[in-house]
Amino acid sequence: MNTSLLFSTSTKLALKNDPPGEWMPNVPDGAIRLSSGFPYPLVVPVAELQSAVNRLVEKEWDLPLHYVGSEKSDLLQQQLQVRSAVRGMKVASSELLVTSGACQALDLLARVFLDEHSVVIVESPTYMEALEIFRNYTSHIISIPVDEDGIQTDLIEEVLRERMTTGLAMPKFVYTIPTFQNPTGTTMSMERRVSLLELAKRFGFIVVEDDAYGELFFEEAFPTLKSLDEDGVVVYVGSLSKLVAPGLRIGWIAASEEIVSAAYWFKKDLDHPFAQAVMATYLEEVDFGDHVVRLRDVYARKLDVMLEALAEWMPDSVTWGVPSGGYFVWVRVPGVDTAGVLKAALEAGVSFIPGKYFYLDGEDGREYLRLSFSYMSEAKIVEGVRLLGDVLGLLQITE
Amino acid sequence: MNTSLLFSTSTKLALKNDPPGEWMPNVPDGAIRLSSGFPYPLVVPVAELQSAVNRLVEKEWDLPLHYVGSEKSDLLQQQLQVRSAVRGMKVASSELLVTSGACQALDLLARVFLDEHSVVIVESPTYMEALEIFRNYTSHIISIPVDEDGIQTDLIEEVLRERMTTGLAMPKFVYTIPTFQNPTGTTMSMERRVSLLELAKRFGFIVVEDDAYGELFFEEAFPTLKSLDEDGVVVYVGSLSKLVAPGLRIGWIAASEEIVSAAYWFKKDLDHPFAQAVMATYLEEVDFGDHVVRLRDVYARKLDVMLEALAEWMPDSVTWGVPSGGYFVWVRVPGVDTAGVLKAALEAGVSFIPGKYFYLDGEDGREYLRLSFSYMSEAKIVEGVRLLGDVLGLLQITE
Repeated sequence: MNTSLLFSTSTKLALKNDPPGEWMPNVPDGAIRLSSGFPYPLVVPVAELQSAVNRLVEKEWDLPLHYVGSEKSDLLQQQLQVRSAVRGMKVASSELLVTSGACQALDLLARVFLDEHSVVIVESPTYMEALEIFRNYTSHIISIPVDEDGIQTDLIEEVLRERMTTGLAMPKFVYTIPTFQNPTGTTMSMERRVSLLELAKRFGFIVVEDDAYGELFFEEAFPTLKSLDEDGVVVYVGSLSKLVAPGLRIGWIAASEEIVSAAYWFKKDLDHPFAQAVMATYLEEVDFGDHVVRLRDVYARKLDVMLEALAEWMPDSVTWGVPSGGYFVWVRVPGVDTAGVLKAALEAGVSFIPGKYFYLDGEDGREYLRLSFSYMSEAKIVEGVRLLGDVLGLLQITE
Repeated sequence: MNTSLLFSTSTKLALKNDPPGEWMPNVPDGAIRLSSGFPYPLVVPVAELQSAVNRLVEKEWDLPLHYVGSEKSDLLQQQLQVRSAVRGMKVASSELLVTSGACQALDLLARVFLDEHSVVIVESPTYMEALEIFRNYTSHIISIPVDEDGIQTDLIEEVLRERMTTGLAMPKFVYTIPTFQNPTGTTMSMERRVSLLELAKRFGFIVVEDDAYGELFFEEAFPTLKSLDEDGVVVYVGSLSKLVAPGLRIGWIAASEEIVSAAYWFKKDLDHPFAQAVMATYLEEVDFGDHVVRLRDVYARKLDVMLEALAEWMPDSVTWGVPSGGYFVWVRVPGVDTAGVLKAALEAGVSFIPGKYFYLDGEDGREYLRLSFSYMSEAKIVEGVRLLGDVLGLLQITE
């Protein structure tokens, strides 16, 4: 039977997109993974998580293995309220929803707000997973360039005014990673933050704030949009993937009760009790503040190492941004199609993510690539950048 | 800001339904939970899962804690192919998708097939979580009664013929739990199985087969619909929740590559690597066949205990079905609104789920209630049934 005839209209549309995960390079064993936005293995608290599992089982035995979980599974909600408070937000428990990582949060929010005809605004470039998620709901995505001060709010305003004047549908939300953005590493200035909130209020849209990297600052902390929001326009998406471990899939939404309740309607009462109880037990047992300070220190050093290596090994024409937090350095290779270089880089033993995957129109990202300094050791970072420098240098000689 | 104005059309429709989890009674501490379809704590392999975590961490350290998981996380796919083979199905790896329990599988399938105007057919009564999931996508749900031989396929045919004649939209799929159904415990006869597949082929719809209880037979095994399917009309949904532990949330879809690929588009590359790796390590280390034999033995005895207690303690007018597998006994209390009795039962110290939650039209389930023999010890089952018998007996005297 030809079952695809039975697919829904939105499925048929979604299947026209590239398959999910196309951006993920097929990295050979032993190659240096500057593509992977994974936490550094030496700061993933494996032993502590293992001990949390053992403590949890001792204390609660089978309880966290059932559908509804246990006291410890429930505890996570409170601990995420604490994490939210650290980011300047007072969140009631009815305003918080635990999710399977930030990605389930984004999928739920897209489901709450987006029809097939809905308009959303994203940063250009932006998180490739978010693009994949939103594209599954609508093809009406507008991208607004990010510069060194974050998304260009004056351009958002221009688009909004024009759409209003011509009677076009207004955007449901703007999706932004204001702090240590993925992939560019840039941080939105305070003026832009205020201006974005003011636009949201004036034009009646939601700001979806993805704060996966906010705690990983190397110089100073930046306030979340939600902590500045007096009009209930910001939906905050948090994640413990970069601070603890992505494989436990713990994220959360902090928003008005109205929005949290709608997201809950689709998520239902289906949590991941075991993963949640493990995370809650871990958070209860460690000094998480100390842990985060250590992460900042480790990642700041790794960034320095990558920047030094870039300065040493990149051909002269290559430029890059200098982030003050997060996991990524965004590199521009003028005149070069980075997607075309990937194969040679992988053969040379180093991976990166071509810029095109972070753009609505891949052509815009042609000359860019994303490097992660998070996952590899300092020695491997130096070696990886050297290998990449060789590949790019050779290319410029032969061209 | 009134953000609900921005909600999508389907969200606005979904929010008109009852909130998720309304069916879950608020059971006081210490009460006997005949409402909970949880596995029996003494057969949840807690120690084995704990040892699996420790072995996993020893062997793979941080790997299963990253986004893409590890060898062990990947191994789960193979092991679910083995579980599928035990149920008579040869499933290629491109035909299998790991999900967060059966519920994510159902949500993904609803998302793949259902528009707001789509029609689906469910059993009456049926799994309340499935009703909640489908209602979030469409209000065009048709329910067809289940008798002692499962869903009445002649009535399905009648509905299909009538809809075809009058030019109404034809159903996208029929959702069924053919073996040890939730909540009735009934099993579809072989004739009905063949007839349902024949209807699906003839009228061009999908059969979504939920097989959460299929391996828990106390007398004989029943073949899955998918093992009988020669035309690619069946989408199989499997789950390890009832066989291992629901809190790890491991389920799967086995279907044509076309359908699996569409579900993957929405699920994306986002797995639960840690939970999957733990489950895979556990399955690798134990003799799962032996484990399942033990489960059958334990649950068969618990069922016997419940049936004996029902015979002893229920008022004469009360009747119930006798399942040959699964977790549930479906009880009819003629002339009594079971939802109205729940409070008194909880006060007396025993819980059940009122029948109304398993029906599209709650009124149809007024006289029914679901008892689980899975979670409580044999002694508690006897005690719980006795308490419930008292409550129902008293009621009939006073009425």
